[in-house]
Amino acid sequence: MTALPRLTLVLGGARSGKSSYAERLIGGQEAVYIATAQALDAEMTERIAHHRAGRGKAWTTVEAPLELTDALAAHAIAGRPILVDCMTLWLSNLILAGRDVPAACADLIEALPTLPGPIILVSNEVGWGIVPDNALARAFRDHAGRLHQAIATIAQRVVLVVAGLPLAMKDQT
Amino acid sequence: MTALPRLTLVLGGARSGKSSYAERLIGGQEAVYIATAQALDAEMTERIAHHRAGRGKAWTTVEAPLELTDALAAHAIAGRPILVDCMTLWLSNLILAGRDVPAACADLIEALPTLPGPIILVSNEVGWGIVPDNALARAFRDHAGRLHQAIATIAQRVVLVVAGLPLAMKDQT
Amino acid sequence: MTALPRLTLVLGGARSGKSSYAERLIGGQEAVYIATAQALDAEMTERIAHHRAGRGKAWTTVEAPLELTDALAAHAIAGRPILVDCMTLWLSNLILAGRDVPAACADLIEALPTLPGPIILVSNEVGWGIVPDNALARAFRDHAGRLHQAIATIAQRVVLVVAGLPLAMKDQT
Repeated sequence: MTALPRLTLVLGGARSGKSSYAERLIGGQEAVYIATAQALDAEMTERIAHHRAGRGKAWTTVEAPLELTDALAAHAIAGRPILVDCMTLWLSNLILAGRDVPAACADLIEALPTLPGPIILVSNEVGWGIVPDNALARAFRDHAGRLHQAIATIAQRVVLVVAGLPLAMKDQT
Repeated sequence: MTALPRLTLVLGGARSGKSSYAERLIGGQEAVYIATAQALDAEMTERIAHHRAGRGKAWTTVEAPLELTDALAAHAIAGRPILVDCMTLWLSNLILAGRDVPAACADLIEALPTLPGPIILVSNEVGWGIVPDNALARAFRDHAGRLHQAIATIAQRVVLVVAGLPLAMKDQT
Repeated sequence: MTALPRLTLVLGGARSGKSSYAERLIGGQEAVYIATAQALDAEMTERIAHHRAGRGKAWTTVEAPLELTDALAAHAIAGRPILVDCMTLWLSNLILAGRDVPAACADLIEALPTLPGPIILVSNEVGWGIVPDNALARAFRDHAGRLHQAIATIAQRVVLVVAGLPLAMKDQT
């Protein structure tokens, strides 16, 4: 496995294996896991536990459902990988909390190039289905798509994961 | 950037950057933009304005929510690029207007190889989610998928855009 | 066309051309078609007839809405291709019948490496849209994604079909 670049974006559908792929990129190194998930119900608690069980002991877990940019700034140390899982849940949390989503995304995109890496951002592709009936879901798709494009522009590597298999969409490493 | 082939199909999910990618293919050239969108509500008006603001002055805009094949025939001049955005909205308009969708698609597929290019068709991938509950949405997915396959067969280049990044699915240029 | 490996997974969205692509892989050879579809309503009957009309005379059709692993074991003969279309319908049938889906998937994944090939499994990508409102649809997406990952791990070739065009995600042939 080649050395991790400063910023990697890992995209994929639900249960595509994108989180496992991102974790394999880090391997056995000491790393920080920034979880944007909130265990608000039993199903989500189970999902979080399922993901957590797959990681090793050398991981520090930080919860950042809303203040992701602050959490990144607080934990970024050169050479210690940070894995954020996942960006679409963060967007969803921002929307539910009534935050200014474009402003929060702009803050993140401004901060990312200033932080030491490696940073790996995992996110869900959500815009490949029928246009949703409700305006909130359409707005969410728009936010996610725009954020993915903005991150992809500044990332050194962008990977699309399908059935656990990685496809390099961008590789400047 | 290499010269544009006679027919290019640009596919991608919602907010994948497919329209911007298609516009970058054309660059600063004089070009015709065929919009299939209809500004029926405030949200769609905003989306159209957002897209329009991204294009340059050298573009002529033509609206063709239904008579797309006629509009292509009327504006195709060898060497002047035409960008159609997007095919799935055209299909949606045809369905809402009660048109014979397979017949309209057959007419388009018959006409395309006879027209001078370059022509760039942008379309949404819509069939990668859960099977929709309602039959109309399922029929729409079927029309879109079949149209994409038919266009891909006659196109010289087919590009899948993910997070603004192009992936060549077919390249005969 | 190169010789078929023992196990191929063909993925794609709805109407992506994945079934036609899988059938083209087999060509004019004698083959077994295992259909997981059940003709429970007129729409599904039409879909099955549409698919069947596209195949040649040298095909034996077997229906296996639930007992897919048994059907594979019963019909696998070295050198005679088997095409299963499709895995997501099988998962859907298992769920509707109240079966233990993870157990059925584990049985299949255990059996596949013991069977002579070539075997081609076709399946729908279903997890690239907005998170569905209902828990059953979310569970279905999870089952499908996990099954795709498990099959991809043991398959020699994994192909993603977009607009009828194949993209090799894995190729160990």
